[in-house]
Amino acid sequence: MKTIKQLQEKKNTATLLIHCPDKKGILATVTEFLNQNFGNIIYLDQHVDRQEKIFYMRVEWELDNFAIPTDKIGEYFETLIATPLQMKWRLYSSNVTPRMALFVSKMPHCLFDILARYTAGEWDVEIPLIISNHKTLKPVADSFGIDFHYFPITKENKIEQETAELELLKKHKINFVVLARYMQILSADFVQNYPNKVINIHHSFLPAFAGAKPYHAAHKRGVKIIGATSHYVTSDLDAGPIIEQNVTRCSHVDTVQNLIRKGRDLEKIVLSQAVYKHLQRKLLVYNNRTVVFN
Amino acid sequence: MKTIKQLQEKKNTATLLIHCPDKKGILATVTEFLNQNFGNIIYLDQHVDRQEKIFYMRVEWELDNFAIPTDKIGEYFETLIATPLQMKWRLYSSNVTPRMALFVSKMPHCLFDILARYTAGEWDVEIPLIISNHKTLKPVADSFGIDFHYFPITKENKIEQETAELELLKKHKINFVVLARYMQILSADFVQNYPNKVINIHHSFLPAFAGAKPYHAAHKRGVKIIGATSHYVTSDLDAGPIIEQNVTRCSHVDTVQNLIRKGRDLEKIVLSQAVYKHLQRKLLVYNNRTVVFN
Amino acid sequence: MKTIKQLQEKKNTATLLIHCPDKKGILATVTEFLNQNFGNIIYLDQHVDRQEKIFYMRVEWELDNFAIPTDKIGEYFETLIATPLQMKWRLYSSNVTPRMALFVSKMPHCLFDILARYTAGEWDVEIPLIISNHKTLKPVADSFGIDFHYFPITKENKIEQETAELELLKKHKINFVVLARYMQILSADFVQNYPNKVINIHHSFLPAFAGAKPYHAAHKRGVKIIGATSHYVTSDLDAGPIIEQNVTRCSHVDTVQNLIRKGRDLEKIVLSQAVYKHLQRKLLVYNNRTVVFN
Amino acid sequence: MKTIKQLQEKKNTATLLIHCPDKKGILATVTEFLNQNFGNIIYLDQHVDRQEKIFYMRVEWELDNFAIPTDKIGEYFETLIATPLQMKWRLYSSNVTPRMALFVSKMPHCLFDILARYTAGEWDVEIPLIISNHKTLKPVADSFGIDFHYFPITKENKIEQETAELELLKKHKINFVVLARYMQILSADFVQNYPNKVINIHHSFLPAFAGAKPYHAAHKRGVKIIGATSHYVTSDLDAGPIIEQNVTRCSHVDTVQNLIRKGRDLEKIVLSQAVYKHLQRKLLVYNNRTVVFN
Repeated sequence: MKTIKQLQEKKNTATLLIHCPDKKGILATVTEFLNQNFGNIIYLDQHVDRQEKIFYMRVEWELDNFAIPTDKIGEYFETLIATPLQMKWRLYSSNVTPRMALFVSKMPHCLFDILARYTAGEWDVEIPLIISNHKTLKPVADSFGIDFHYFPITKENKIEQETAELELLKKHKINFVVLARYMQILSADFVQNYPNKVINIHHSFLPAFAGAKPYHAAHKRGVKIIGATSHYVTSDLDAGPIIEQNVTRCSHVDTVQNLIRKGRDLEKIVLSQAVYKHLQRKLLVYNNRTVVFN
Repeated sequence: MKTIKQLQEKKNTATLLIHCPDKKGILATVTEFLNQNFGNIIYLDQHVDRQEKIFYMRVEWELDNFAIPTDKIGEYFETLIATPLQMKWRLYSSNVTPRMALFVSKMPHCLFDILARYTAGEWDVEIPLIISNHKTLKPVADSFGIDFHYFPITKENKIEQETAELELLKKHKINFVVLARYMQILSADFVQNYPNKVINIHHSFLPAFAGAKPYHAAHKRGVKIIGATSHYVTSDLDAGPIIEQNVTRCSHVDTVQNLIRKGRDLEKIVLSQAVYKHLQRKLLVYNNRTVVFN
Repeated sequence: MKTIKQLQEKKNTATLLIHCPDKKGILATVTEFLNQNFGNIIYLDQHVDRQEKIFYMRVEWELDNFAIPTDKIGEYFETLIATPLQMKWRLYSSNVTPRMALFVSKMPHCLFDILARYTAGEWDVEIPLIISNHKTLKPVADSFGIDFHYFPITKENKIEQETAELELLKKHKINFVVLARYMQILSADFVQNYPNKVINIHHSFLPAFAGAKPYHAAHKRGVKIIGATSHYVTSDLDAGPIIEQNVTRCSHVDTVQNLIRKGRDLEKIVLSQAVYKHLQRKLLVYNNRTVVFN
Repeated sequence: MKTIKQLQEKKNTATLLIHCPDKKGILATVTEFLNQNFGNIIYLDQHVDRQEKIFYMRVEWELDNFAIPTDKIGEYFETLIATPLQMKWRLYSSNVTPRMALFVSKMPHCLFDILARYTAGEWDVEIPLIISNHKTLKPVADSFGIDFHYFPITKENKIEQETAELELLKKHKINFVVLARYMQILSADFVQNYPNKVINIHHSFLPAFAGAKPYHAAHKRGVKIIGATSHYVTSDLDAGPIIEQNVTRCSHVDTVQNLIRKGRDLEKIVLSQAVYKHLQRKLLVYNNRTVVFN
């Protein structure tokens, strides 16, 4: 597809995600480090879990007059701030566009939703490739001009296919993976290569109806509300850190087919909202839970 | 409390709840039965489960000019309509006010919500008594002028206490029971005395977090939405037919205490809405699921 | 785009939408008419507005063994049922696929959402053409293989351009029009050609913030919830019958840009849900309000 | 009513609400002021409106080892921090329980909801009196053991009655007023005595359906969602800063009476949530909008 991306004014900022044991003065220490080096803070959100005594923070500042060269920020921050305060941190530059791979099977609704946002320029991301265990959605990939790689999966070939997929991801310098209704379970080995970097959409309000056929189970249980859940994938099926959830009402008049139809709208929005938060560097994982910054 | 009930114009109607195997012409048969006998229909809602081939209906009509004497309607309907069509049905008269018993423990929010509606005349119901396994809420019962009966429960005395409770309920001609955060599990024997007539509120979005301490479990799982579920009690814990559910958003900033606080508002509204639907005769149970008429 | 439509089993049914002054026996009369002529009813929903004394009904039945030839159903129904009961009615056959035209301007999110559903076979509809007052979205139309017609609008040429658009719509036998964030006001003359057949999405919770720049107005007013509204277009701006609405939470941290971003997800879902209801023949308009059948 | 308040561990903290022109280092300055004086921060939330260049902050700290005597904190903070940074600020001590007056008319649902929470000890507040222009709800006040003052209002006596009410409020050292479905418009004079200290509940999703009979207007417009809005009262009717809003679905089957019934549940929860936020000192008003801290 010829691009229809609207030009967005490009930022020149750095973002730090931090967590560490809570103690007095962390916030002041971090903000003064940035202020003293002429880093103009344009975003700051922090949270203290008083029960666990952990401090969480996301701060973003302009690099234009920042005294520390961009490629030295990590080193300086580690030495001057992070080591004394026992911080774990990640640093991102707005000048590096993340690279995402899409895994799909046969259902197109999440794929379309993501490619539409991509094409419209809603997200700052590159999508160099789509991987699928079926050929069904190749026409969609073609139409949007994205490489489509077919990896059929059987019990026998699963390990070698995943190995080939991982090589492909590395070759394309993929930073994170989005499972857009990919109907295969990734092996623990695969997931270990992308810790908290594989986003899945599950078509239920987790932890209710984990596993297969959640709409059938929801119909049988007679629930009055159905939901969808996006989460980071861990080796524990449908049990990774939840990023976003949403729900919609249903009733006795809804057949399973109706629930599936209503659910599609939930799934695609909940998945895309999770991807957006990930791209915004607003997600931090701790103890199998997410901190979602504003 | 001196009454503040606003006078509501009293209806003089009958209501039929019906379900039967689906076949052609049931709707026409029932409505013509009422029309021919000069019963002015003021409500009609029906649903056909096309998969299970079951017909569900709720119809309400004015008794004023109805040709069949009120105390004969059941007999005539059974003979002329229900038997040939293999119907199961229940008949209610608007002139009979249902009698409800409240079971509570220590938490007052659901109790207050129900007594407030009762006192304000929102519901057409009588509440002759409150039963509790603690004395904590006796002042509330006293203040609203309702008899409070204290039945402490231990492992040893549970059977005899339930027997005494059942006698009390029968003595007061109680039609249905509402567990307003009653923190005891009723025995299967007790429940059998009130099939689909004991309404409970569970403080989670069932089937997620059934059992004890659901807010703690929700916090640990890191969900982004919490819920509450009202359902009819069966011998299977937290697994009875769901009547109503609702949810509210939460986030990483919410402590367990916050979830409990937010959940109270859900619980009381979801329970009271279920009681309202029950009082309106708009609930029909089939295969452990509810049909909730409009 | 090469089609990815999944084959759906094609129904062979007729659907009647009816409204008329309420009186006894209408429901029985209509259902018996169908039953006696061997029409197997697969859907029935009815509503009586007791205040206005109007009866509304949607009924769908299988044509396979129906005694009346399909092209005579309207005549027979009018003579035998509708005329005596002063009914207004519309009859639809599942064998006639509705034809829809899309009007767009520069924003692609609603367009993408609709074309994705169309391509995926979610809807039983034909979309022969897209009309726009800007060329921005032509690449999207091209990619999905749909004709794109460019009609730039100025104050001076508006009447003649609308005339040309209407001719194009007639030439392509368009049944209804969807304004997918089309940023021009259609003239009353245009609308009269498609009464209750032009569906618009307004980016606010109507009647709040009618007119231009609703997100700016919502931000200024400091609302805590924003919404979107799909409605049939009438000659009265943003005041036509509401089909569907939905909302999402916002807060003081949301800039106008954030509201616009969050709103896009609402807009596309609310518009598509309205189109789906229209395609399902589940909408009936009376007194500038919609009856939305189940 | 005999108290059923559960004992809550009493905090000994101070809370500052601050807003000022944004500049570098404000956050560090404030947190260091507290840290250096041994104030253990237990809550901190801040927001910068980058468009308006305004800094907002709420910070709460323990007074136990705080170096500055409690009655000197304001003076020190004003001199050392607020004056140089052009701050506007308010300081609250957890040891001072706020005093609230309730204004009601005839509808009891919001009154019951508030008194239930008060009696249950959900809120840290004193409610010494209820004022009403009708005697209808006196039994409720009596039952909860709260003084009830009857001030009938006519066009002729409005000014003098409000004067008498204000005297009564001052005599009882009332800090803020809650209009729990009080069906009189307070004069601008009255409101000026309690700026951003009178909380109202309006029974619509403002700014839609401001003024009288919003449910009738919502029904006529055919909306698919109704709402309720709590806001601070200003001299401009229904146009004060919005604190909280919530909504619920409705449809063509809902009569005006149904909307009123459904709305009651919204109104009482939305009002009580606003009062809770106010009591928590989590509301800050600027430019007719609220900042609602987490």
